Amino acid sequence: MSIRIDKLAVVGVGLIGGSFALALRSAGVVRRVVGIGRTGATIRRALELGIIDEASTAPEAVAGASLVLLAMPVGQSRAVFESVARHLSAGAVLTDAGSTKCNVVQAAREVLPAPALERFVPGHPIAGTEHSGPAAAFADLYRGRKVVLTPLAQTDPAALALVRAAWEACGARIFELSAEAHDDVFAAVSHLPHLLAYALVDQVASHPDGERLFSFAAGGFRDFTRIASSHPEMWRDICMANRGALLARIEGFERALGVLRAALDKSDGAALEAVFQRARAARNRWLEEAHGDAPANGRDLSS
Amino acid sequence: MSIRIDKLAVVGVGLIGGSFALALRSAGVVRRVVGIGRTGATIRRALELGIIDEASTAPEAVAGASLVLLAMPVGQSRAVFESVARHLSAGAVLTDAGSTKCNVVQAAREVLPAPALERFVPGHPIAGTEHSGPAAAFADLYRGRKVVLTPLAQTDPAALALVRAAWEACGARIFELSAEAHDDVFAAVSHLPHLLAYALVDQVASHPDGERLFSFAAGGFRDFTRIASSHPEMWRDICMANRGALLARIEGFERALGVLRAALDKSDGAALEAVFQRARAARNRWLEEAHGDAPANGRDLSS
Repeated sequence: MSIRIDKLAVVGVGLIGGSFALALRSAGVVRRVVGIGRTGATIRRALELGIIDEASTAPEAVAGASLVLLAMPVGQSRAVFESVARHLSAGAVLTDAGSTKCNVVQAAREVLPAPALERFVPGHPIAGTEHSGPAAAFADLYRGRKVVLTPLAQTDPAALALVRAAWEACGARIFELSAEAHDDVFAAVSHLPHLLAYALVDQVASHPDGERLFSFAAGGFRDFTRIASSHPEMWRDICMANRGALLARIEGFERALGVLRAALDKSDGAALEAVFQRARAARNRWLEEAHGDAPANGRDLSS
Repeated sequence: MSIRIDKLAVVGVGLIGGSFALALRSAGVVRRVVGIGRTGATIRRALELGIIDEASTAPEAVAGASLVLLAMPVGQSRAVFESVARHLSAGAVLTDAGSTKCNVVQAAREVLPAPALERFVPGHPIAGTEHSGPAAAFADLYRGRKVVLTPLAQTDPAALALVRAAWEACGARIFELSAEAHDDVFAAVSHLPHLLAYALVDQVASHPDGERLFSFAAGGFRDFTRIASSHPEMWRDICMANRGALLARIEGFERALGVLRAALDKSDGAALEAVFQRARAARNRWLEEAHGDAPANGRDLSS
């Protein structure tokens, strides 16, 4: 489907929203982009960087947009739905880029009038860096990445098609899941790892001998903890929004760690090695399948 | 100190031992390298790759070497001390590259006769990749890396000086710690992260819906779990060798994770965000100080 968007509105012009605007501009499918932000400073920066054509702190600025992307931290979803709902033009398609979906869908159901709800397409681009803000945005962020859409039973097929086509124009591959399945999957492979990385770094930092510990931390630690440099407010919102699934995953992880602790406690090296073997085999299989990446493409790892 | 090693013996010619041999050859400070291995296959491979000049499966092959590096998994330390002790030439300096030090020192104390113990210099190069075996070895592995030496009270200063000089010839920076301090530090910044990464990957792999989970895992997961592709036998040995310190760290981590779980359970977003903020600030400070690396050098992270 080839698309042409006369006016795109992006609420939250950071890494995610800014890169979406840049990608659609670069694909030549959008004529004008208005950016809407909480604070004047960020939105002015996006304007200076040429990401948007017009900056506003007012929700009215969504008026006239045929596509509206919400790309602020998910904790603000309800408030933003409330503020933009009555300014949406008839026929406007609304989508979002939140990393959690059940809470966004619930807020949409509660806040949006039925016609707007039918044209709301919940989405999650599986892309990002540990950096945030408009200066981190770039047009190729979504190239070859996955975008998960979680349409509702009542979602208008034309709205879904427009959002698919917009993400395809960004170079992304589109998948559909239910909001519940989405949140379960990402609790396991994204939200829990972030929580573990934050917890580990905080444990080292708060150790009386923390400075010395950091001084001997090397490549393995650096990569393991890279996601602990992610945006704290965004990740607070994600964790809170996906509390239920994340709590279940934490408990599962505590059990898995408990098994390793017990093996160590009993000096059961064979049990440890069995888990390590299984994990390595599974990860290497995943790398080969998902990335077509030989696991042996050695990047440096100081152990 | 400029050195000249007529014969170097390396027990265990994998990534670590092989790279040491290649680095010393490349620095032009070693005339002949004999590699000693458990299995003929690995040691023949090292010979074919030109890492060593002579391959042997017999401990007698250390005879005549002025420097002997032990670079097999740390669980074999005692057995290797026992097998090589009576073949060491008078004046030979013995060192090791084990990732744990208390257990290696203890085995050395119990097995080596006093004159050999005085010329044993325990060491740990903080370098590696998740790959193993002689084919993974390369001469620059240690360039700019840290090597921790944990000399004993009775260590001969000349032996210490030789081992320092050999690692310096590999391009490494040398630090000294007690064996106990070493093991505490690396339990926190290396051994625990490895255990957590293995546990997470195994948890995902053993999930009934594991294949779908992996299919949406992206860059954040990939980097967080990279160390779970490390050598299972080596890491079993490290965990077993550093049981005490590692168990203490696991318990500390369980407490830290418990704090986050409780915050999530009570929907206390502010408590979560405080930990995330602290962790991000500490990590970014570490990156700036330790690596002279602006934390903003965006590598891709699919969240």
